[in-house]
Amino acid sequence: MKVICLQENLKNNLNIVQNIIGRNLTLPILNNLLLETEGGRLKISATNLEIGINTWTSGKIEKEGAITCPAKIFYNFISNLPNKKIEISVKENNVLIKCENYKANLRGLPADDFPIIPKIKEPALLEIDGSKLKEALTQIVGAAAISESRPEISGILFKFEKNNLILAATDSFRLAEKIIFNAASKSSSQNLIIPQRTIQELIRILSEKGEKVKIILGNNQVLFELPDGQLISRIIDGQYPDYQQIIPKDFTTQMVLEKEELLNSVRLAGFFSSKINDIKFIVKSGKLEIISHDPDLGENRSLLAPKIKGKDLEINFNYRYILDGLNNIFSQKIFLGFNSSAQPAVIRPAEGNDYLYVAMPIKSV
Amino acid sequence: MKVICLQENLKNNLNIVQNIIGRNLTLPILNNLLLETEGGRLKISATNLEIGINTWTSGKIEKEGAITCPAKIFYNFISNLPNKKIEISVKENNVLIKCENYKANLRGLPADDFPIIPKIKEPALLEIDGSKLKEALTQIVGAAAISESRPEISGILFKFEKNNLILAATDSFRLAEKIIFNAASKSSSQNLIIPQRTIQELIRILSEKGEKVKIILGNNQVLFELPDGQLISRIIDGQYPDYQQIIPKDFTTQMVLEKEELLNSVRLAGFFSSKINDIKFIVKSGKLEIISHDPDLGENRSLLAPKIKGKDLEINFNYRYILDGLNNIFSQKIFLGFNSSAQPAVIRPAEGNDYLYVAMPIKSV
Repeated sequence: MKVICLQENLKNNLNIVQNIIGRNLTLPILNNLLLETEGGRLKISATNLEIGINTWTSGKIEKEGAITCPAKIFYNFISNLPNKKIEISVKENNVLIKCENYKANLRGLPADDFPIIPKIKEPALLEIDGSKLKEALTQIVGAAAISESRPEISGILFKFEKNNLILAATDSFRLAEKIIFNAASKSSSQNLIIPQRTIQELIRILSEKGEKVKIILGNNQVLFELPDGQLISRIIDGQYPDYQQIIPKDFTTQMVLEKEELLNSVRLAGFFSSKINDIKFIVKSGKLEIISHDPDLGENRSLLAPKIKGKDLEINFNYRYILDGLNNIFSQKIFLGFNSSAQPAVIRPAEGNDYLYVAMPIKSV
Repeated sequence: MKVICLQENLKNNLNIVQNIIGRNLTLPILNNLLLETEGGRLKISATNLEIGINTWTSGKIEKEGAITCPAKIFYNFISNLPNKKIEISVKENNVLIKCENYKANLRGLPADDFPIIPKIKEPALLEIDGSKLKEALTQIVGAAAISESRPEISGILFKFEKNNLILAATDSFRLAEKIIFNAASKSSSQNLIIPQRTIQELIRILSEKGEKVKIILGNNQVLFELPDGQLISRIIDGQYPDYQQIIPKDFTTQMVLEKEELLNSVRLAGFFSSKINDIKFIVKSGKLEIISHDPDLGENRSLLAPKIKGKDLEINFNYRYILDGLNNIFSQKIFLGFNSSAQPAVIRPAEGNDYLYVAMPIKSV
């Protein structure tokens, strides 16, 4: 193999692939990148067996071939070279890198030993604006369960329904749902559960430039096709919980308030919350009071005067869950809806129906 | 005590004092800040028994008094309030904070239990531009020894000699020296060794605005007097090593080269260095070659063509020490001077004599 390409192009592509590589002691080839010539370009691939990423770098192919080499040092070395022509060649499983007066020789491993990243050749389920998808996923990804004890909620739900793409995540304590309306040109119906780690990686590599992304379904695999590369991931098997039934539609107490003011009050209350992170919302006499108390440190009280409709109420939350919800709403005014101190509360933008956050209350200590 | 002040002023002063507070379980009052009214202002103090910091916030004193309260939560709470008037009052060892609709009540401890931060009333040894001092200290502080097994080199040397302030630090593997010429208006002679932690804290709180800083010597203590506050620290007892004798004055091999090129080559070589971080400099046939080798990863080679005078040479260094030295030199061209593979090398700006870095070579594996 012998390839000549520009440092900047190569570096950009390495930025896309290298992040999924950890330190794998049982299968050392997973610490490597696969470099191979393909269709007149240099293809670079990485996999952690759950996620695979391919990218292609333009350049001059002087000799076809394939090799793998340690990802971390290849990335570090290439990233620190000047933005000039780089020559990459292979000699007896060694990768030789030359750039101006800098040279390196990396011990590689044969390309044949590299795990196969599945190829998916189905038609696209959906083609969507990448920056829109990035923003939508960012708003919900944090609500998925970290533990894999219930695998189906450790992933993000992609629900294709009519022309819309509905994205949802929950860890059973809170739920986030985002709808991208008219995402598909033709009506379809399909449910996928995609691992949280895959979505975090997808968010990382999606640019904000608004290029189109294709979502393609294979056999237990999903492919996100970006202009710069491909991300292929396993799908989580299972039935996503029917979360619609826990979302309250009517409220006995509801209000609209300034996001910044609420965010600030919850943050301040968080400093005084106890070990279970509990803070208390008290709706009384047309005011919302947010209080918290730590027996060692002291207590705190914020008094807000939003537009309130309905009954007085006391309800306790884990303040972190409320902060997570508020931080993912981009509008200035927030709607809060409650029923009782034991029923889930709804947080959403005061206007619009494309984002919804549901938080379960906690019992006070 | 009852004080009214502006959030922004208070927050700025808390930024100065709060950093030295850790988590002290044996003496809990060290987790607290001392708040006291003094000369029509609110004085805030923190100490870790080695370093003490005082700041003063302007405001309206409605009632004189003093109290201590937990630093971390006080800082977090105040920092997150809006930039409005804050009222701080004391009731039975509780600190009450009010700002618009936000209220908190912090459990305090009596001011009498707070350790005394010594007052130093001597005349200043030196009055110096704060931004100049900050830059100079930044260039050398990292070279001091982390371990306290030899306490005298765990600190930074402040040597007042004639009209100059000489700053030096070493961990016996490398040495950094910076001279601030004509720092003093009158000639003086004095040596102080100040703990590295104190200097790191001083660097943090020195602004880049160029205000004057006074250095005042007390009884085993030194006081840095800034416009916004005071930093008081213990001095390290002991004799600083006579490092001048190890600095070579003449060289059998010397060269001038571009800082960026050298920095890049050393950084690239670092990726391939072995466990002892060793990289090799080879001076041969009018060129400088920098090489490194890791049996598992591979090897690397950079070829530089600086202006070289003198003999051929091979010499090994810990690349981190070379990077540290280069990163603290701000000029484009670098002077390198060597004698043999066992003698210390000198790195300094090609022009000027106010900064000097000496690195001991290591034996190759």
